Amino acid sequence: MNRNTRTVLNDQEYPTASYLEETMDPDNWDALRQLAHRMVDDMLEYLEDARKVSHWKQIPAEAKSFFKRPIPRQPVAVEEVYQDFREFILPYPFGNTHPRFWGWVAGTGTPIGMLAEMLTAGMNTNNVGFEQIAFHVERQVIEWFKELLGFPASASGLLLSGSSMGNLIGLTVARNTQATTDLRRTGLQGEPAPLIFYASAETHSSVFKAIEFLGIGSAAVRVIPVTEQYRVDVDALRQAIQVDRTAGRTPGGVIGNAGTVNTGAIDPLEQLADLCRDEGLWLHVDGAFGALAALAHEFQHLVQGLERSDSIAFSLHKWMHMPYGLGCVLVRDEELHRNTFALTHDYTSRLGGGVASVHAEASDYGIELSRGFSALKAWMSLRAYGADTYGHMIAKNIHQARYLADLIESDRHLELLAPAELNIVCFRYNPGGMTDNQLNKLNENILIQLQERGIAVPSHTKLGDRLAIRIAITNHRTKQADLEAVIEGVLGIAGAAGTPDAKALE
Amino acid sequence: MNRNTRTVLNDQEYPTASYLEETMDPDNWDALRQLAHRMVDDMLEYLEDARKVSHWKQIPAEAKSFFKRPIPRQPVAVEEVYQDFREFILPYPFGNTHPRFWGWVAGTGTPIGMLAEMLTAGMNTNNVGFEQIAFHVERQVIEWFKELLGFPASASGLLLSGSSMGNLIGLTVARNTQATTDLRRTGLQGEPAPLIFYASAETHSSVFKAIEFLGIGSAAVRVIPVTEQYRVDVDALRQAIQVDRTAGRTPGGVIGNAGTVNTGAIDPLEQLADLCRDEGLWLHVDGAFGALAALAHEFQHLVQGLERSDSIAFSLHKWMHMPYGLGCVLVRDEELHRNTFALTHDYTSRLGGGVASVHAEASDYGIELSRGFSALKAWMSLRAYGADTYGHMIAKNIHQARYLADLIESDRHLELLAPAELNIVCFRYNPGGMTDNQLNKLNENILIQLQERGIAVPSHTKLGDRLAIRIAITNHRTKQADLEAVIEGVLGIAGAAGTPDAKALE
Repeated sequence: MNRNTRTVLNDQEYPTASYLEETMDPDNWDALRQLAHRMVDDMLEYLEDARKVSHWKQIPAEAKSFFKRPIPRQPVAVEEVYQDFREFILPYPFGNTHPRFWGWVAGTGTPIGMLAEMLTAGMNTNNVGFEQIAFHVERQVIEWFKELLGFPASASGLLLSGSSMGNLIGLTVARNTQATTDLRRTGLQGEPAPLIFYASAETHSSVFKAIEFLGIGSAAVRVIPVTEQYRVDVDALRQAIQVDRTAGRTPGGVIGNAGTVNTGAIDPLEQLADLCRDEGLWLHVDGAFGALAALAHEFQHLVQGLERSDSIAFSLHKWMHMPYGLGCVLVRDEELHRNTFALTHDYTSRLGGGVASVHAEASDYGIELSRGFSALKAWMSLRAYGADTYGHMIAKNIHQARYLADLIESDRHLELLAPAELNIVCFRYNPGGMTDNQLNKLNENILIQLQERGIAVPSHTKLGDRLAIRIAITNHRTKQADLEAVIEGVLGIAGAAGTPDAKALE
Repeated sequence: MNRNTRTVLNDQEYPTASYLEETMDPDNWDALRQLAHRMVDDMLEYLEDARKVSHWKQIPAEAKSFFKRPIPRQPVAVEEVYQDFREFILPYPFGNTHPRFWGWVAGTGTPIGMLAEMLTAGMNTNNVGFEQIAFHVERQVIEWFKELLGFPASASGLLLSGSSMGNLIGLTVARNTQATTDLRRTGLQGEPAPLIFYASAETHSSVFKAIEFLGIGSAAVRVIPVTEQYRVDVDALRQAIQVDRTAGRTPGGVIGNAGTVNTGAIDPLEQLADLCRDEGLWLHVDGAFGALAALAHEFQHLVQGLERSDSIAFSLHKWMHMPYGLGCVLVRDEELHRNTFALTHDYTSRLGGGVASVHAEASDYGIELSRGFSALKAWMSLRAYGADTYGHMIAKNIHQARYLADLIESDRHLELLAPAELNIVCFRYNPGGMTDNQLNKLNENILIQLQERGIAVPSHTKLGDRLAIRIAITNHRTKQADLEAVIEGVLGIAGAAGTPDAKALE
């Protein structure tokens, strides 16, 4: 104790408001512990009973209006808040934990993921980098994904909220690398000629959104037609590049799809890699779910070539079933990745020891500085399940999609609308003698009934002029009987409706 | 049951691999329940003992090398994975849950936030919008923040990972709105004249990063000098705008700071709002932590004017202590916000009923389509603590910073290096007779010793040529004795070193 200091300190008055020695920790830890145990039991029961309880349902007006309340100024007992969660929130989910949820592309979650998220939030470390273990865990996870997807040891990567962010990060590196000027400094207005990107018509909206975000503008994306398999037409792509070169524009990069969102189509990745190598273009692969087919030994060949891309984005909350939101971006050339994002700040600079003895590295690879320790759920999940289990669950879903497609093709009233190569099945009920417009109305109605009667949750898409009932199986809980049930449901709904009145459906 | 269907189904063969009827759910739910209870107990004990156990420490080589392992192919018992977490991860945090962590700007977390995160991950809903309760909860939270920060009812907002993303979103709306062309379509290369933004020299790196990200280029940011209080010099700003106008460039927007990261300085927001109104410029406020001073009744006046901004970004994992990563952006004009991001996709279009009877709204306000239900932790925390508790904890930290500044000013060997108006105190040990360079080395050493001896975790910054020990109090666990302890620590370390040898410090 430094006596001098003590004297000095005593001269100053600490303010006196009643809250000045209070914290946000509970007065009664035991009561909170009790509640916490109840929460754990309830949620594990919820997951154990997922088939019974976690399906989508319409929200009653009472629940909606519960969330139009004035701001709470005073504390409410946490037990009461939890009761409100049980009553007004938990019963009205999107439904993606249910074995028959196949809408859009959604992961199913796991109980281990749930527990990892609790540990993460308890530890609540800010994984900005520096000397702390969290960044080592994230590096480990990135190393594992590099290996799983065949990326070289020299590649870099980052965990982020999902594939939309992954596409954005990958395309930012592409833009900055392919620009002819110092893009970070002078921006796109400094570019002498327009920087052009190429993507198939089946490419996900997040790619087009990223292009807008980056200031490139949607007019600088060449939307390349697809083949009958919904894969990019490589000849048309090659021609488009030449047209731009001839016109004095700067071809920048190609976005390839490893699993399109509409049909699960996989672009010819080897051909795209060859083309990009020959043309000096960046190849970014949007592998949101499809890239992970690489984990399923028997289907790895479907995505061959993705390991040659310059950057790839994929989600871990989809086909890896980790809690939302979690994704990953890998970049083949770490230096280009860092050159795009690294920025020094006085207040995060390195020192000769202590916390800052290690660089605050995370923000060198993306936009976030403060960030959560989402690597923990990835690390725990990968260890507890093992990569092979993921491979099996992914293979299972691909087999299931093919089985479902077989069921559809063997029924004369059902029409498969796209190849079911990966995990997505697009089909419609088509009894014959109806226009596309009539069929669209009929199938929309069938789809709505499937959902509202609690039979299953497929979603929809448009393929050309045809509305498809779309079943995207990224669901580890789905079993054979579930696939049969949805087909029975479709036929049952259509049959009960009798011969549809064409006029009524217009 | 449709008999016809049954017959058809029986004709198809479901594949036979052993994993085809397996899931990722545990075989033994009771064993997992037991482990889950242990985890809850351990983590609540960890938080209850935060003062004893959650401090930063250097990571032993053994722990680092544990995360350089080959990819696990086979499952590992989850109990073992948890044991590894306890041994190799939990002991080596950033340290921001500890009462004496004041480095950078980091929130402390709460046990209620931890439990909310578990509920979120168990429910694991994909909060993309559509007919599900999660988006109503998020809307409720956004409404509450609009009210707390004085934004009009017509404003819009979105939860995202933190203030870096919030700044990026706000500035994207600013860019697209202020452009003279259709920026989404033609990009920045379509702009006839450079679009210019203005920010003080004390502005956070994430703003400059966002400008680069958006393709505007750092050369298009005018870095405006600050006053002695580290606030933007409004006269210099006004002149810079005129220079750009005269030169034919397009002034686009001003970034104001509600709490700079170095010193907590708050730009004169009313003056900035007046200037932006007069000049037709967008005013974005980076309010990462400082904006939330609006919740503390006695300090609300410090950030007056922020309610007049066009957009504002702030974090909820900092001064609101919610689990990482969580932030929010508010935009005054909802239409401009949606115009920047809304994009329709066939596969998420609305239908006449079912899940898609409601628009998938979330992505209209930002980059993510799939996204987690982070609104739950915000909603539960705000209800369980009440806005006034947050106000008290924020006021407490401001009082504490001022008390700490008083302690520093009353010691002849300590030098306050910036006004401590908000929650940040920058100071150095200065016994007199040393150059800045010598003092910088001395104070770096003191800071490292504070951290490595486990006394406290301040961080550092450079103010001009002077290295400051920087204490940023966004910590609900900090008490009076902690502030006195760090001052004693500084004086003790400096005193033990004796009269510093100037040569040795060069």
